[in-house]
Amino acid sequence: MNEQLLLDSIRGVLMRLEETIIFALIERAQFAANPPVYQAGRFGAATGGESLIGYLLHETEHTHARLRRYTSPDEHPFFADLPAPILPALRFDESPLRNNRVNLNAALRRVYETAIVPFMCKAGDDAQYGSSAVCDVACLQALSRRIHYGKFVAESKYRQCAGEFQDALRAGDRAAVLRLITDPLVEERVLKRVELKARTYGQDLDGGPGQVKLDPAHVLAVYSRWIIPLTKEVEVEYLLHACRGQS
Amino acid sequence: MNEQLLLDSIRGVLMRLEETIIFALIERAQFAANPPVYQAGRFGAATGGESLIGYLLHETEHTHARLRRYTSPDEHPFFADLPAPILPALRFDESPLRNNRVNLNAALRRVYETAIVPFMCKAGDDAQYGSSAVCDVACLQALSRRIHYGKFVAESKYRQCAGEFQDALRAGDRAAVLRLITDPLVEERVLKRVELKARTYGQDLDGGPGQVKLDPAHVLAVYSRWIIPLTKEVEVEYLLHACRGQS
Repeated sequence: MNEQLLLDSIRGVLMRLEETIIFALIERAQFAANPPVYQAGRFGAATGGESLIGYLLHETEHTHARLRRYTSPDEHPFFADLPAPILPALRFDESPLRNNRVNLNAALRRVYETAIVPFMCKAGDDAQYGSSAVCDVACLQALSRRIHYGKFVAESKYRQCAGEFQDALRAGDRAAVLRLITDPLVEERVLKRVELKARTYGQDLDGGPGQVKLDPAHVLAVYSRWIIPLTKEVEVEYLLHACRGQS
Repeated sequence: MNEQLLLDSIRGVLMRLEETIIFALIERAQFAANPPVYQAGRFGAATGGESLIGYLLHETEHTHARLRRYTSPDEHPFFADLPAPILPALRFDESPLRNNRVNLNAALRRVYETAIVPFMCKAGDDAQYGSSAVCDVACLQALSRRIHYGKFVAESKYRQCAGEFQDALRAGDRAAVLRLITDPLVEERVLKRVELKARTYGQDLDGGPGQVKLDPAHVLAVYSRWIIPLTKEVEVEYLLHACRGQS
């Protein structure tokens, strides 16, 4: 795949993922924050000492692993102890990524449970634990796909100007790599687009004029405070790891 | 719960479910129809002879049953061989429904696989079997919840004018019951609202003006051809069963 095709393809995936993420956040925001969903051991031995969300995420990944989800280069599991696929392996187009084991799902899950849910859901407990957890799994999977797409973004940026990255990567200079992959204009464009989408899809067409199912400002903040920074962290980690792998 | 409260509550749930259904259909329509997902035995012994969607739906219901999903009076499983909940039982508000075993999921699944998917997805095979099946499960669960909410609708209609139903129910006259529960004005209002929602949420804001992710006419047809008729079938079945249970 040539560089322009790669870049267009990455851009297309990231834009379509915005819909998936916004729909998933709107669905989750129907329910209260429901703190018991995230408390480890809250439901005793039945969930293996995990929280309810941990239990459901683990069970879901178990099933999806059998359907070869995690053989795809843009999918990253939250759990390591997953079974082998039962479906025959798909032949993927040769991945443009270099070998790496970057997986920031532990950080994503922490941020999601402790910051994003309390921020976007109404406080309190409406007893809709199962429904909340099912929505959480959809959110976490979409967010994980989004932030780890940073690997493709980073690879594409690197290929465009490998020379500029060399010193910073050789020195393992995280801050310098972060500066090199940061493009404030692109970030601004993403946020504008996300705001428009959140405003459009988050309307409460059954409520009065101006009523919303989820405040667009909240979606915007989820992107600016958490999704974009975590994506950039993936980009930096990927470049540092992939570079180390080559030397 | 008094009659007006019951009616308002039913209406609120059905309206909010429109969002869930439309989001789920839009997500599924990203992928091609992918016929292999629905072919029994296509993936051999690994899926227990089931189709891929049957396998994933079964596994998902297995997990959700443990989270007590099917103890809720508005949830109906597609499979019968599910494990007991591991979460303590929730105390639901006393259900307004009378005892019944009406479950039209087999018909829903048939209609979904053989009519809705080929109708709304672009024809062909893009090899995204796992992603398609994950979206299918979300669609089927939302659609099942929608059509079986017909039980609450029917109970509410019955309570408003039990007298009018008596002869038809005693005679088991399906056509007469169907006439009694049919309200063309309400159906028209639902379709208008669904069309507006589908047009709003289905916009492709990354494409040119007028571009859509899923044609609103397709969503409308899903409602008018399949969701509304199946809901009415649930209503009729429920009234006939519940009535038989009482006599």
